Amino acid sequence: MKKIKRALISVSDKKNLKPLLNVLKKNKVEIISSGGTFKIIKKLKFKCTEISEYTKSPEILGGRVKTLHPKIHAGILNKRNNKSHYQDLIKNNFENIDLVIVNFYPFENTLKNTSIHKKIIENIDIGGPTMVRAAAKNYNDVTVITSCDQYKKLIDEMVKFRGATSQNFRQEMSQIAFTETAYYDALISNYFNKINNNNFPSKKIICGNLIEKLRYGENPHQESAIYSQDNFLQIKHLHGKQLGYNNYNDIFAALEISRSLPKNVGVVIIKHSNPCGVSILKNSVDCFKSALACDPVSAFGGIVSCNFKINKKLAIELNNIFLEVIIGNGFDSDALKILKKKKNLRLIDSTNFLVSNALKFTSSNENILIQSEDKKKFTKKNFRIVSKKKPSKLQFDDLIFAFNVCRYVKSNAIVLVANKTTVGIGSGQPSRLDSCQIAIDKMNKFTKQTSTDLVSASDAFFPFVDGLEKLVQSGVRAVIQPAGSIRDKEIIKFANETDTVLIFSKTRHFRH
Amino acid sequence: MKKIKRALISVSDKKNLKPLLNVLKKNKVEIISSGGTFKIIKKLKFKCTEISEYTKSPEILGGRVKTLHPKIHAGILNKRNNKSHYQDLIKNNFENIDLVIVNFYPFENTLKNTSIHKKIIENIDIGGPTMVRAAAKNYNDVTVITSCDQYKKLIDEMVKFRGATSQNFRQEMSQIAFTETAYYDALISNYFNKINNNNFPSKKIICGNLIEKLRYGENPHQESAIYSQDNFLQIKHLHGKQLGYNNYNDIFAALEISRSLPKNVGVVIIKHSNPCGVSILKNSVDCFKSALACDPVSAFGGIVSCNFKINKKLAIELNNIFLEVIIGNGFDSDALKILKKKKNLRLIDSTNFLVSNALKFTSSNENILIQSEDKKKFTKKNFRIVSKKKPSKLQFDDLIFAFNVCRYVKSNAIVLVANKTTVGIGSGQPSRLDSCQIAIDKMNKFTKQTSTDLVSASDAFFPFVDGLEKLVQSGVRAVIQPAGSIRDKEIIKFANETDTVLIFSKTRHFRH
Repeated sequence: MKKIKRALISVSDKKNLKPLLNVLKKNKVEIISSGGTFKIIKKLKFKCTEISEYTKSPEILGGRVKTLHPKIHAGILNKRNNKSHYQDLIKNNFENIDLVIVNFYPFENTLKNTSIHKKIIENIDIGGPTMVRAAAKNYNDVTVITSCDQYKKLIDEMVKFRGATSQNFRQEMSQIAFTETAYYDALISNYFNKINNNNFPSKKIICGNLIEKLRYGENPHQESAIYSQDNFLQIKHLHGKQLGYNNYNDIFAALEISRSLPKNVGVVIIKHSNPCGVSILKNSVDCFKSALACDPVSAFGGIVSCNFKINKKLAIELNNIFLEVIIGNGFDSDALKILKKKKNLRLIDSTNFLVSNALKFTSSNENILIQSEDKKKFTKKNFRIVSKKKPSKLQFDDLIFAFNVCRYVKSNAIVLVANKTTVGIGSGQPSRLDSCQIAIDKMNKFTKQTSTDLVSASDAFFPFVDGLEKLVQSGVRAVIQPAGSIRDKEIIKFANETDTVLIFSKTRHFRH
Repeated sequence: MKKIKRALISVSDKKNLKPLLNVLKKNKVEIISSGGTFKIIKKLKFKCTEISEYTKSPEILGGRVKTLHPKIHAGILNKRNNKSHYQDLIKNNFENIDLVIVNFYPFENTLKNTSIHKKIIENIDIGGPTMVRAAAKNYNDVTVITSCDQYKKLIDEMVKFRGATSQNFRQEMSQIAFTETAYYDALISNYFNKINNNNFPSKKIICGNLIEKLRYGENPHQESAIYSQDNFLQIKHLHGKQLGYNNYNDIFAALEISRSLPKNVGVVIIKHSNPCGVSILKNSVDCFKSALACDPVSAFGGIVSCNFKINKKLAIELNNIFLEVIIGNGFDSDALKILKKKKNLRLIDSTNFLVSNALKFTSSNENILIQSEDKKKFTKKNFRIVSKKKPSKLQFDDLIFAFNVCRYVKSNAIVLVANKTTVGIGSGQPSRLDSCQIAIDKMNKFTKQTSTDLVSASDAFFPFVDGLEKLVQSGVRAVIQPAGSIRDKEIIKFANETDTVLIFSKTRHFRH
């Protein structure tokens, strides 16, 4: 237990001070403060000494230097059980500061509210973090409070221990304090790196705010939590059980695809983070039914993401199958009523979900792989038609759609499309030929395509002719794939012999 | 351009000071310093004023408070073009400090070298980060140097600009400085969280050191880099082209599996981050050949990881197929000579690779999912034999091996095993039944198993009887799978009717 006799308060966020000041007063804690905090404390009619009065050193440089003084820092940093420290204090006529309540200039908010560099720089707090770090280092003797949210805990602690705090409490607060200072400087560092387009600095600091601890991770024996590099998620959980790790993983996978589709159009069905049906038909019910038809077996227990507001008609259709999650850019109230009948079905409003420029990172052991997202936009210029046969407008649109979808399918990806809808998706195979076979098998099993406009996309080049051969034999009339095989010529030759449209994209779409 | 007239030097790492001091002297820069740095500078025979002399304030608390003084911080923080700042300086008889050279108490090394909490806490630098942050904030007027590695750049700058530094240089150094302070406090925060077993604090700070920028990411149009939460990678690149994103991704996937196998035993073949063959036969050549036989088509262009030192005999075998990467716990010199003949083949020494306790994280947009790794160890106690038929010793060992491998196969995972070797792997399917079919097809195509000891593992439960049915029809005699389906009873009944061994694990092994 350490009794608190003297507190230094300097807060940017001035909320909720009164109940705390009451407790400090009751426990005869002397208060030092400055600037706006000093004024508020006086206004609330509590006693308070100004820091410049306390240090006998004036506040200078428009407030840039006020607390950076040995009297303040010796008061915080001295070890109470160290005789030589004690003598230093006496000699210099310094006194203990036992409680430091500081929160920083609001750098994070400033970043959100302005892009004026000077203003942003001016909001970098120097004195605050120094006091907090000093107090946190000396938590053995000093209590450090870095947020108004902690006032209640401090009050409870001081009431319980009659003006003192426990070692546990001080250590907990110290731990949070160092996280705050690290977070604060990480924001500054990331801001500087961002304005200088430095994606890969020699030290990379990634910071996240806890959104929620999850019941478990990918599996029940794994611990897990979800964080955001922002302060909130962009999705709203409207109904149903708590979201789990796999739900979140699938939801983000689904939304990434949805947002790559034409605005307000398209249904994506996801199972185990892979798409098992995507359609961009204009009529929403047709669109869902077509996406579902691609692989109704896999869709069981899956996630459906609609890139538009869900209406009553569609809600009735959606309710016909077992789904874990339905995502929409809002729901009509009728639709919501219908869907909410299923107690466990999770409903997600994705209206505010925007694809950001955040880098993607993934870790393994101590290693972190960081990369920019695969978001390159396509136009007709990005492709080269290498076959004699040229694509029809319909084929071309379907090819672009198919190639876009295969970007989100785990490699090796083969996507078959007819009439703006996937009709066969082959994924997650170590061999491209196997992915072709899987896509074809699905198509033959579920939709028995006879379309003469069947097209296919491949995320990477065909190393041999065999994959293309298999597709053509199954009715595919046009294929898009990146070039790059040493057998490209053979492949073009085969396309010409079979009157198949062949397009070489300049882009590969691996995803693991 | 800002001329440097006065420098404050306080470094923990005292390397390489002399050439820098020479340049400072040439440019008539006044030097302030304290403690060990002061002694070194004097020893090198340069002029230097001690900080306590400069501030007229004694160094106290055993060095805890020496630079936390208004004279120092006003000297750093004042805006040179601000009249009122200038007047504050004159009034208080303070002077400009234009250059701050500071590196911190070596917290990171301390963490590596001791686990004594007090010692670790004592190594938290307070004064250093304060000066660095102040100088970095005021980079418009002040140059901040945080590492000996920057001395040369500073010297070049001062020579080029006759004792001054450019705005660009100062900003770059400022950016690095904030990254250093963020990194420093992130280490402290993570240390506190670690000793308190707090995996998921309200703010999570992840920091990494750049290992190398990569040519590109998963695809050529994506930027990428690899970082380590440590200061180095645990693997050694012995030969071959630069490693790419996909190489690293596959290498880590391979090593994770290798390290889960019995010590010094086992070959893993990876393609597109999925295993396509794993064996734990004792003879290394047999082991490789068997792993390869599981799916020789997929192994083409893949990665082979040997959980042991690679000898000449095996090297000859490995050289028979096209591989991107070979990983071994070392290589015999004969083996190395043989393998190095292939100019592009990448050789990796994994002797020092250890699986750590690091959490696994993955990001999407602004969101970060964090979880503990799926590393639960199995013993016979973790399983329940639910069929009448009991497994033989051989079957049981193979079941445990199969279940361990399916942990690393992307869901839905079906792994067929005979004689300590995978003979069919179904992966990356949205439907479990499809994964069964793929595993069986591979087996029938490549190894044509007739073993009466064919066993299978499934990463999650069978929702229906159909998957198990398919496996049994193809010759599988024993199956391990997590329980949990509402049809578990039906599934047990089917196993009993077909005299199949059925084991319920208490664990699921999803991996997406």
